[in-house]
Amino acid sequence: MDIAAVNLLPYEDFVNIFGNVVEKCPIIPAAVWSRRPFVSVKAFEAAINEFVDALPESGKEGILRCHPDLAGRDLKSGTLTRESQEEQAGAGMDALSSSEAARMARLNEEYKKRFGFPFVICARMNDKAAILQQLSARCQNELAVERARGIEEVKKICHLRIHLLLSDGTFKL
Amino acid sequence: MDIAAVNLLPYEDFVNIFGNVVEKCPIIPAAVWSRRPFVSVKAFEAAINEFVDALPESGKEGILRCHPDLAGRDLKSGTLTRESQEEQAGAGMDALSSSEAARMARLNEEYKKRFGFPFVICARMNDKAAILQQLSARCQNELAVERARGIEEVKKICHLRIHLLLSDGTFKL
Repeated sequence: MDIAAVNLLPYEDFVNIFGNVVEKCPIIPAAVWSRRPFVSVKAFEAAINEFVDALPESGKEGILRCHPDLAGRDLKSGTLTRESQEEQAGAGMDALSSSEAARMARLNEEYKKRFGFPFVICARMNDKAAILQQLSARCQNELAVERARGIEEVKKICHLRIHLLLSDGTFKL
Repeated sequence: MDIAAVNLLPYEDFVNIFGNVVEKCPIIPAAVWSRRPFVSVKAFEAAINEFVDALPESGKEGILRCHPDLAGRDLKSGTLTRESQEEQAGAGMDALSSSEAARMARLNEEYKKRFGFPFVICARMNDKAAILQQLSARCQNELAVERARGIEEVKKICHLRIHLLLSDGTFKL
């Protein structure tokens, strides 16, 4: 599917296809549908990023709070979104040793207690070791720094999800 | 559950419980969690309404586009959220005569073509006849009027969903 095909989508199809490019935030692609036509995929992504950047700080925290923990209870119970499931599995989050799992759980709790939102990282761009190292290091940040850092990761995840959807035969028009 | 209990909820429980008070927009309650403690349920609702009002017009349209059609394909295919299912059934949307269903489908299409978002009305405050009458009348509005009107209905739906959740034994702490 190319950008010309994206521009022709009725809002219902657009939201069905792109509704989870920001985890559990279909309001975001649903909002940027108002900005069509997009001159390029890059412009479509830029519209999403601009919408996110214009949210109040509470809204950015809201986006982060819609994300599951890495190797958390949604992974264990099979209630992750399809996209998160694939991303977490790709980074080996479903195959942690018991000591790695215990360390991840402890650090996730420490992070959430400190910031009031979960640790978000683009799992497709990191492996298990890098994720554990980042989680440990980012627990030391200030709130404002970490909120901004989490949102940068949300944008990377969004970028990869959009490109995967556009290259996926399922949605070729 | 009273407001003191609500104020004590960790964000994950808060988002699990209140995540759909605005249809498919968990980002909204997830954002207002940052505003705790709430002095009252009214203050909690006010925080949600303020967040919605502060969104750009595209964001308000995004909220509306996260709503299903009344008596539409999600009702037929059983893919409505639990809350929408109960609301639509309560207003008789699952028991339209074939001529009512045809009229509803025609007017829904006319409305969506005109505005680029679906007709939203608080089904619990209306019956079948009132919904059809409103849908027909509101098709004639200007875009800005109808966007604001849709958001007013979203707030009524949110109000009732919050009160139902707080009085629901399921979530009594």
